[in-house]
Amino acid sequence: MEESYAFEDFEAGRSFPLATRIVTAAEIVEFASEFDPQPMHLTEQAGKESILGGLSASGWHTASLFMRMMFDGWLSRSSSEGSPGIDVMEWKKPVLAGDTLSGRSIVLETRLLRTRPGIGLIRFRHEVENQRGELVMRGENPIMMRLRTPQGAKL
Amino acid sequence: MEESYAFEDFEAGRSFPLATRIVTAAEIVEFASEFDPQPMHLTEQAGKESILGGLSASGWHTASLFMRMMFDGWLSRSSSEGSPGIDVMEWKKPVLAGDTLSGRSIVLETRLLRTRPGIGLIRFRHEVENQRGELVMRGENPIMMRLRTPQGAKL
Repeated sequence: MEESYAFEDFEAGRSFPLATRIVTAAEIVEFASEFDPQPMHLTEQAGKESILGGLSASGWHTASLFMRMMFDGWLSRSSSEGSPGIDVMEWKKPVLAGDTLSGRSIVLETRLLRTRPGIGLIRFRHEVENQRGELVMRGENPIMMRLRTPQGAKL
Repeated sequence: MEESYAFEDFEAGRSFPLATRIVTAAEIVEFASEFDPQPMHLTEQAGKESILGGLSASGWHTASLFMRMMFDGWLSRSSSEGSPGIDVMEWKKPVLAGDTLSGRSIVLETRLLRTRPGIGLIRFRHEVENQRGELVMRGENPIMMRLRTPQGAKL
């Protein structure tokens, strides 16, 4: 059986790998057609003419791909209760058709929630990089997580 | 001909409406299946059993829908050169199947970029609300915008 993660497992400094993901031209165009139809996300030609240098994923697509990579990497096996938002998200380099993305979620800090007994908040730094090890996206966000043993919790 | 917006048009305090958008159950499930397959985004039953209260859109779906609402509302007619990231994004209320979303982008501040002549940075607050006028998502992000008359710019 695979390990499953509860609040108590998220110690500051611990790192959880994201699943690896190849990004195809077809899915870049499909996502952009639906959510972000700017030219550089729709054709190789327009991408080459832009500062991005080629057909490149919408930043919102990269963020959504990151969510799936996190789900497959570790979140699906955790006691996550969702997230209130994103503290910061930076698109550092273009994600180009054919890129292979990987990365990690690193625990920054954890605290119990006074308002929600049995649930704690984990603040993560997330890093997504390409096949050359270049950071393409970096972000920080808090995720709510159930405790394994709520009765033992000390606020 | 529709108005088109350049850096000079984005004065602090000015508000630009987002396009209105109905969110269907089918698209909530489709997006979640691809990017965020947590149970509350996949079935009405699991949504009802979660703190979200019904089949609800992934926060990343709401963010992507916001991008399209911004594109259709005003961004497609602007001199946008893209964005370096998101300063903050808060998911305030669940987006449920059948909701109608609308909102606005409000200019917080503008500045010219010393490193990129002819381009300025506009910092926006974005607000997305549902048909009851409840704020469902709020965020801040900077967008790069070409000047209409670069030669007249004063740093």
